[in-house]
Amino acid sequence: MALLETITSPAALKALPADQLPALAEEIRTFLVAEVSKTGGHLGPNLGVVELTIALHRVFESPRDTLVFDTGHQSYVHKLLTGRQDFSKLKKKGGLSGYPSRSESEHDVVENSHASTALSWADGIAKGRRLSGESDRHTVAVIGDGALTGGMAWEAINNIAVDKTLPLVIVVNDNERSYAPTIGGLADHLATLRTTRGYERFLDWGKRSLARTPVVGGAMFETLHGVKKGIKDIVAPQGMFEDLGLKYLGPVDGHDEQALERALSKAKDFGGPVIVHVITQKGRGYQPAIDDDADQFHSVGKINPETGLPFEVGGRIWTDEFNDEMVAIGRDRPDVVALTAAMLIPVGLDGFAAAYPDRVFDVGIAEQHAVTMASGLSYSGLHPVVAVYATFLNRAFDQLLMDCALHHAGVTFILDRAGVTGSDGASHNGMWDMTLTSIVPGLRLAAPRDGEQVRKQLREAVDVSDGPTVIRFPKGDVADPVTAVRAVGDVDVLFENSGDEVDLLVVGVGAFAGLAIEAGEKIAAHGRSVRVVDPRWVIPVSDDVVGLARRAAAVAVIEDNLVSGGVGAAVTLALRDAGVDVPVHTYGIPKRFLDHASRVQILEELGLTADQVVLDLEKRL
Amino acid sequence: MALLETITSPAALKALPADQLPALAEEIRTFLVAEVSKTGGHLGPNLGVVELTIALHRVFESPRDTLVFDTGHQSYVHKLLTGRQDFSKLKKKGGLSGYPSRSESEHDVVENSHASTALSWADGIAKGRRLSGESDRHTVAVIGDGALTGGMAWEAINNIAVDKTLPLVIVVNDNERSYAPTIGGLADHLATLRTTRGYERFLDWGKRSLARTPVVGGAMFETLHGVKKGIKDIVAPQGMFEDLGLKYLGPVDGHDEQALERALSKAKDFGGPVIVHVITQKGRGYQPAIDDDADQFHSVGKINPETGLPFEVGGRIWTDEFNDEMVAIGRDRPDVVALTAAMLIPVGLDGFAAAYPDRVFDVGIAEQHAVTMASGLSYSGLHPVVAVYATFLNRAFDQLLMDCALHHAGVTFILDRAGVTGSDGASHNGMWDMTLTSIVPGLRLAAPRDGEQVRKQLREAVDVSDGPTVIRFPKGDVADPVTAVRAVGDVDVLFENSGDEVDLLVVGVGAFAGLAIEAGEKIAAHGRSVRVVDPRWVIPVSDDVVGLARRAAAVAVIEDNLVSGGVGAAVTLALRDAGVDVPVHTYGIPKRFLDHASRVQILEELGLTADQVVLDLEKRL
Repeated sequence: MALLETITSPAALKALPADQLPALAEEIRTFLVAEVSKTGGHLGPNLGVVELTIALHRVFESPRDTLVFDTGHQSYVHKLLTGRQDFSKLKKKGGLSGYPSRSESEHDVVENSHASTALSWADGIAKGRRLSGESDRHTVAVIGDGALTGGMAWEAINNIAVDKTLPLVIVVNDNERSYAPTIGGLADHLATLRTTRGYERFLDWGKRSLARTPVVGGAMFETLHGVKKGIKDIVAPQGMFEDLGLKYLGPVDGHDEQALERALSKAKDFGGPVIVHVITQKGRGYQPAIDDDADQFHSVGKINPETGLPFEVGGRIWTDEFNDEMVAIGRDRPDVVALTAAMLIPVGLDGFAAAYPDRVFDVGIAEQHAVTMASGLSYSGLHPVVAVYATFLNRAFDQLLMDCALHHAGVTFILDRAGVTGSDGASHNGMWDMTLTSIVPGLRLAAPRDGEQVRKQLREAVDVSDGPTVIRFPKGDVADPVTAVRAVGDVDVLFENSGDEVDLLVVGVGAFAGLAIEAGEKIAAHGRSVRVVDPRWVIPVSDDVVGLARRAAAVAVIEDNLVSGGVGAAVTLALRDAGVDVPVHTYGIPKRFLDHASRVQILEELGLTADQVVLDLEKRL
Repeated sequence: MALLETITSPAALKALPADQLPALAEEIRTFLVAEVSKTGGHLGPNLGVVELTIALHRVFESPRDTLVFDTGHQSYVHKLLTGRQDFSKLKKKGGLSGYPSRSESEHDVVENSHASTALSWADGIAKGRRLSGESDRHTVAVIGDGALTGGMAWEAINNIAVDKTLPLVIVVNDNERSYAPTIGGLADHLATLRTTRGYERFLDWGKRSLARTPVVGGAMFETLHGVKKGIKDIVAPQGMFEDLGLKYLGPVDGHDEQALERALSKAKDFGGPVIVHVITQKGRGYQPAIDDDADQFHSVGKINPETGLPFEVGGRIWTDEFNDEMVAIGRDRPDVVALTAAMLIPVGLDGFAAAYPDRVFDVGIAEQHAVTMASGLSYSGLHPVVAVYATFLNRAFDQLLMDCALHHAGVTFILDRAGVTGSDGASHNGMWDMTLTSIVPGLRLAAPRDGEQVRKQLREAVDVSDGPTVIRFPKGDVADPVTAVRAVGDVDVLFENSGDEVDLLVVGVGAFAGLAIEAGEKIAAHGRSVRVVDPRWVIPVSDDVVGLARRAAAVAVIEDNLVSGGVGAAVTLALRDAGVDVPVHTYGIPKRFLDHASRVQILEELGLTADQVVLDLEKRL
């Protein structure tokens, strides 16, 4: 790492002779493969943007110029080039964030990992600079072709394109797909690409990649890649952007650093908004990643850098339970269809898609569309299952409320990665969903406590035809099965040391059932009568829960969600409405953004362990 | 109304000889002007779609074919043609809804009045029908050019355009703007238009309309209207859509019923997704509406049908207070800029825009972009004020949370039409905002009780530079000024009959201060000690409020928001965290969608009057 070590700032990078850049790029790739395979992280996307990031920092002057990375998981190279080369604790407590972080560096601007926001940020920053008389400070947004499928990005383009003097460069990092085969014969016409050897290699890769069927991207992908309009647009795919009035440069080989510098310099000097269309290869330079057709090592756990295989084969995760049951449901229920927003595999719809390819819709990074389209599918007589990460439901709250719930659409929502996820940082935690869903009229939410409950409650959900239902479960290994002692209506009793009135009713929400039992048992050991229950369907609060609370001197609710407006708050409200005067103690997440750390570390810090809950409860009882 | 009365269903309309259609259109316009001027409602948009709606119902077969109206306020003609001709109680309790309503008719599908959703609905319905073997049932989405600026619409187009066999017709109702002047000389080339006399009239209107500067619409508008690319795209503005792979028909004169029938029939028979670009004139046939440059009578109160002037000149509304103060702030603070999502006048930014045209951004119907762009403006050193209707903040919750709050961006949000709005129906009520904003870390929310407080709190808000602030106030006449008896920290005491501990602390949120005082006085008259306060900044709950609650035997919170997760819930949580064991009784809106009626009727129905609050409180105390 002789070269990389000398690059302590963008200034040092600028001073490096151009002929040493390929060696630097090589060092960076070696570094990334070695380091990220130890810690886990977004390997593929970062291997794809090595030359692009080098070129950005050589052409522009961060932080005087502003670099905004959309869905910032491709900022590792940027971190390396801005003085952050200790990756030993990447995404770990006290280590580097997996995303840009203002607290790490003045070169970092947008920390948010939700996609499609960069152009709006850049529009604001560029217009703000101009109003402040600083038009010489450039703003650059780097956005993936996938993120362009998000509606927000279009809202921004619609505003940016009409402003002829805005010094704003939009770099489209096109890494998901490849050119149509016809491009081979047209290579000579692509002036910006023709001088480079890298382009030939790119073409080879492109041809291989064609075997993959484009699923995500839709019309935007086809337009970018000339699929539809033939030769003319393959030579000049700028049509769509120029229709919108944006200057277009490209396509540029994203692994030819000199070509990138030329294009970016031209864009910088243009004096108005420019799109630079850069073709990169996800996983570039790391054969196991390139060979991985599914997602080119988009995000990895700890892997063996030689083979690219994970060191540990993980156990069965929550998502697997959903995945398998959906295949079974698909067989029994031809009316069940599924939707994903560009995350078919991560949300566990690959089984269903393989079995019923006509019945799955991947809409791109377009949660709003997914939810309203599902309402339309429901209107037509089908039962849609929309599977998203819990944090991304925030994007479609209005559609859930106004299109789905207001219209009594029978739609099942699967919220994966609900609750504290940990290492991906503040914007990946699924800690808002129960608060949002608890204010949607007619919505029912289940928090399954184990794999069997995932399957069972999914079956129950797809039977609901008059409104939205939600199933939420966390990231990672599925919890050990918990058998109910008995049932009270829909509520499962998991532990009790008294058949009648109790000192304490503990409500364990979803995966916290185990924690709730442990806490309940400890308090019981202190000589109190305790009942621990899993309401299964936690929103709205059932009469059974109210009835059980009526027979308790106090209630504790333990949930993996904000305390504000979560299940505890709903229970409090339900008890008040029913005239039940019992104190409710809620254990959950406080109203603040959580720094990255492991899930276990964060739960510990929040007091969400059995011992800490017991300690606090004993004070209150 | 001899003809109109005979049109009791779409079948009757189909049976009408074509030569009688102009007379029918005339009758419909006369009916609309006469009726809507009595009740109030969306006059201009409906006058613009008379011929279009007739043609839709003659070419398609509702309800077997599905008609989806985006932002359904232009569905009055549709109502008239589907058996609903009693407009006497339009938007009033028990009368017709101002939007489509499934409970009114099997011809109505989407009730939601939030824009840009129709294409997603239609995509779902059309794909659902096809999966169910009903591809012969057509789906038609009618969407305005304004709604196309919303990102959701682009997400949908991106998905629709790649599906070559989807029987889906997208009617772009282009009524906001007009053609560039050059179009006059090219009229002969416009095949679909050239045979009609209506087109000449359209051209005249177009030329007149050019005086208006396009504010909203951005790149999409310029593309549609060939502003940027010159002659070629004026003749063939389909570029953008065809780049995306959509078949394009048009432009069609939206007031030539026969031309519309021809284009729609062609679209129907095409066998794949088609865009039909229809040019209509808002306010068509009603001179006062056409002469109103600002918004062509987009939505009117009761008016004199002869002059088009309102019968009653309303008093000063909440929005006026904001409007005026923004002009003053703009003078003192050159760093303050303003954003609106296509509602410059309704949200009261017209004063600021006139005074400081360079410092206002109208981003189109694009709330997501507005919020994130504001975060970018803040990053650049400015202080943005984003003014939207409260209900539309739902659209940008994720951006408020992840772009604004996570990044500590100093942005002021103005939520107009907060709380129960009434006659516009379920989706226009601003009843979710305090719940949503109360879970955003670092966010501060003010609910001003009168005009003076709007001005004062706005000043306080623009001084906050480390996070989002929100000012929310209702629709309509500003409340009478309420003078504080004294202040306790930031909290204003509005009434008290004891200087010390009280039986009841009443917290009146915002415009409910008057109601709170009235209720407090009545309870005081029953011999209890009462204190009524306005916390001014209601989120987060201040220590002052907690301190006052500590000196009360009970607390009542009265708020114009959902009971779930509102200020009452926040106070409950704050008291629990502080170890203050005082019961909190919250009076607000229950978790259900509200049918249209007047604000007063709805508040009465919800128990939100002083007498009802007193009655309930006396039971609980």
